[in-house]
Amino acid sequence: MLANFKLILVETSHPGNIGAVARAMKNMGMDQLRLVNPKLFPHADATARASGADDVLRSAQVYSSLQEAIADCQIVFGASARDRTISWPSMTARECAENFVKPVHAHETVGLVLGRENSGLKNHELDLCHYLLRIPCNQEYSSLNLAAAAQVICYELFIASNQQPSSSIGDIGEEALASSEQMESFYQHLLETMADIGFLHPERSKSIMRRLRRLFNRSQLDTKEVDILRGIFRFAQNHNQKP
Amino acid sequence: MLANFKLILVETSHPGNIGAVARAMKNMGMDQLRLVNPKLFPHADATARASGADDVLRSAQVYSSLQEAIADCQIVFGASARDRTISWPSMTARECAENFVKPVHAHETVGLVLGRENSGLKNHELDLCHYLLRIPCNQEYSSLNLAAAAQVICYELFIASNQQPSSSIGDIGEEALASSEQMESFYQHLLETMADIGFLHPERSKSIMRRLRRLFNRSQLDTKEVDILRGIFRFAQNHNQKP
Repeated sequence: MLANFKLILVETSHPGNIGAVARAMKNMGMDQLRLVNPKLFPHADATARASGADDVLRSAQVYSSLQEAIADCQIVFGASARDRTISWPSMTARECAENFVKPVHAHETVGLVLGRENSGLKNHELDLCHYLLRIPCNQEYSSLNLAAAAQVICYELFIASNQQPSSSIGDIGEEALASSEQMESFYQHLLETMADIGFLHPERSKSIMRRLRRLFNRSQLDTKEVDILRGIFRFAQNHNQKP
Repeated sequence: MLANFKLILVETSHPGNIGAVARAMKNMGMDQLRLVNPKLFPHADATARASGADDVLRSAQVYSSLQEAIADCQIVFGASARDRTISWPSMTARECAENFVKPVHAHETVGLVLGRENSGLKNHELDLCHYLLRIPCNQEYSSLNLAAAAQVICYELFIASNQQPSSSIGDIGEEALASSEQMESFYQHLLETMADIGFLHPERSKSIMRRLRRLFNRSQLDTKEVDILRGIFRFAQNHNQKP
């Protein structure tokens, strides 16, 4: 999955960041990591921060120039936080994912290039890229940590590759939702209980019941929950009949 | 912006992670950080990893229990990577952002709770949450670094805060939502009532209460509804004291 996406780190200073990027990639189902002139690699800090993603580190390929690292790529994105004086065409991470994670692109090799921790990519490196890749963020504090930027990009690719139906707000568990018929019996029982315990003021029962219906309708009770609540009602009703 | 969203870290072991979370927050325009029993804080590692976000660190509030940290929250999300045996209602980070970053929710306080690096949140902590918050990822390697998880969540909130307002599913009425503190009093009253009417089997009270919490948490009771339900509880409790 996403095997055609290559994450390329250029002249990373801190080996811990390389490890954290590997972890972020593996979390999102990616494993194609390329390193251009890493300052220190391999390194214990990289392995430590990679946590269980040391396989991604081990298979990382090291290059001596960005040109070599992207030689097989058909599409290349260069991550950039800064505004550039010359404007490149740009896409957000989400647009990149939505446009390029598609079966039609599955046989294209896509390079995602992330620059140095402090200074990003140089203009002559961006010249090798087709698009700037932007992560929307607070413009007054826009420098994401390298691994954090990789995390967001890989996350967007993963989401786009999994556009399967996601959980809905009503998806609450294994029990079947109560039917309308069951809910009407439930409301009838609630009404009787409130009368039995002396709570119900007849003149305001209508508005109280409307509020309670609104509450329990939006809760989408399942059958088990209806059983529990009606059990409580029964005990409340019978409470005064006990010795 | 996003000032009503509180990021809450529970028992973080590594101060560096706290710093990295602060940076991730500030990158996405957030600054409300709360810490429950951090192992080491303040700490030089936190300040170093926060980079320019040390203002977020400095204003972080420290609590001795999760309950205190979320006392003023109307909606609480608990991040979880693991599948749970009892299924809580859940939302993805994107669903959370799309549902709760809306003008209609701007006056609600939303807590986003992230657990320990190695073991996440405990079930009794999730009992205090309305929703599980999930980050879709590779199911074979699903443990995101704490700061990486915070980065994705804050990123989704930022993206949603920069989109046009749309109609809301969470817009449930004119009354203020009950706070966590009010809900805890509500659950205590419910528990006492069930004991008073003889419903509660002590040996199964825990699982019953968990189910009832799940039900009422996802219902997002407003203060008026809490008043009505507690009125009913009082009548049920006093029922046997009447002539």
